[in-house]
Amino acid sequence: MTIPLRVPDAAELKAAAERLRGRIRRTPILELDGQEVGVQGSVLLKLELLQHVGVFKTRGALNTLLSTEVPPDGVVAASGGNHGAAVAWAAREVGVKAQIFVPKTSPQAKVDRVRSYGADVHLIDGYYPEALIASKEWAAERDVLQIHAYDMTSVVAGASTLGQELVEQVPEATAVLVSCGGGGLYAGTALGVGDAAQVHIVEPELCPTMHAALEAGEPVETTLGGVASDSMAAPRAGAIPYAVATSHHARSFLVTDEAIIAARKFLWERCRLLAEPGGATAFASLLSKAYVPGEGDTTVVVISGGNHLDFPSPSDPARRGSPNSPS
Amino acid sequence: MTIPLRVPDAAELKAAAERLRGRIRRTPILELDGQEVGVQGSVLLKLELLQHVGVFKTRGALNTLLSTEVPPDGVVAASGGNHGAAVAWAAREVGVKAQIFVPKTSPQAKVDRVRSYGADVHLIDGYYPEALIASKEWAAERDVLQIHAYDMTSVVAGASTLGQELVEQVPEATAVLVSCGGGGLYAGTALGVGDAAQVHIVEPELCPTMHAALEAGEPVETTLGGVASDSMAAPRAGAIPYAVATSHHARSFLVTDEAIIAARKFLWERCRLLAEPGGATAFASLLSKAYVPGEGDTTVVVISGGNHLDFPSPSDPARRGSPNSPS
Repeated sequence: MTIPLRVPDAAELKAAAERLRGRIRRTPILELDGQEVGVQGSVLLKLELLQHVGVFKTRGALNTLLSTEVPPDGVVAASGGNHGAAVAWAAREVGVKAQIFVPKTSPQAKVDRVRSYGADVHLIDGYYPEALIASKEWAAERDVLQIHAYDMTSVVAGASTLGQELVEQVPEATAVLVSCGGGGLYAGTALGVGDAAQVHIVEPELCPTMHAALEAGEPVETTLGGVASDSMAAPRAGAIPYAVATSHHARSFLVTDEAIIAARKFLWERCRLLAEPGGATAFASLLSKAYVPGEGDTTVVVISGGNHLDFPSPSDPARRGSPNSPS
Repeated sequence: MTIPLRVPDAAELKAAAERLRGRIRRTPILELDGQEVGVQGSVLLKLELLQHVGVFKTRGALNTLLSTEVPPDGVVAASGGNHGAAVAWAAREVGVKAQIFVPKTSPQAKVDRVRSYGADVHLIDGYYPEALIASKEWAAERDVLQIHAYDMTSVVAGASTLGQELVEQVPEATAVLVSCGGGGLYAGTALGVGDAAQVHIVEPELCPTMHAALEAGEPVETTLGGVASDSMAAPRAGAIPYAVATSHHARSFLVTDEAIIAARKFLWERCRLLAEPGGATAFASLLSKAYVPGEGDTTVVVISGGNHLDFPSPSDPARRGSPNSPS
């Protein structure tokens, strides 16, 4: 079952919002004192880490399952992390079978989490690319729906509900900061926010997938690593997200691993929010001044996930992630 | 400097809200699916654990410092936990000296936290009662303001801003559930919510301070223990909170330690919220059916603090707290 790559249109965005109402959490906004963050204007956090499964990806997965006729053999996804867990959760929500291909290099806790939602887990030798290949081979012989982590119209339309909510919650927003791996969160947020505010991309220096694509004029293979790579290491930007980024004249701001670690620490110590490194990446751009708001700005920062289950420790290099699971 | 015990009046509640606006976080509301929690009606969480210092107590401490002329020698409090940290934070906010008397039995992390806000820490042999006595002896010889953890008009007026916010955020609320140690959170919430909804008290079976007072017809000495005692072990209910509870015909619902542990686990696994045991106590009453909402009810649960810095582990008895720090 092959589905063409296409930027979702206005009707699809609206339909996604209606479809997910009451089934996806309307995640709250926390207003900070701009002074506390060391920037001008207002700073508000969109607490998407409180979403079902602790990550925005449930929006896209559930929207896909509710808007697509699921074949008899169910759904399949490759991921050792957030995408796999989100698809497993969404499949359970709608009562279909999920097959998740997980690299054996994934931490046991993440594997257990996927299983906890009732999915069948296929453990594959190697890293994410091997798991992806195995999932495609498996799918080729069966009548199944493959759910891509970001480069899929219904996934991006689902993610757009985050942007649509955000505009309702903070109509005065002038800028929105989101992290970007393959680009599903960015594309959804940009489409959902529309003309109401400028949506900026923030990426780790060590996972600069969209930054590289915007520089090259097309998605390109990118070398990946660093603390946020467990959730952000997409080898190339998605075609849909790239199309949204160019049509919206998006800019990508880069942050260091040190800035991401400091952002996790700030969110934990000052706000008791335990963001994963990818979830703290957008906020890192404010703290490190990679992105500087103006005096009258109202900046909303999406804290997109909370599935890195340790406390932030700036002095412990052993906590650094490995790029085996771009989800 | 002795301050009489008096339930704050309407003008004091309003003044507190104006005084704290922009200085205390307006903590967000997270709406859950009642079905997910296993109860009828709507369930919403007031995320007070995202407050400055991770606890509601900053409201009362800051309101006190902003509404009272602080003597030359500053403020003093006894606590190895949330109250001490909140007073230290508030003192730094307004630029006065804080002396916090901490029992030597308090965990180093908590002592460090009080110090991190710039307070002078006095380490006292023994437990909370010894620290309290030492703080009073110290204060007797100096011109200082002692800030009580709950039995103080300005502290309760400060806590009332939580209830005032809650009614603005969820005007359709029919019931509010709050945990109760000495009773400052309860009294403040009940006064702030007023006639808009019924505010119910939830207490651990092993720290039933207000429950015992309501049964006895007056505050009485109560035996304390259990997992939540690090933040809830007040030996007797405060006079102000007791007066509010009787005038509001309050009921106290009791929950087991197992229910509190399960509530922490639910909040962490389903919502990525790391509540401390005292902060999860009110929610425990819903999950364990100690409190059962009706079909049309809209129940708001206050998650009051997040300063127990470990992940919930229902199988590890070593994680149980000890009753040395009623703050």
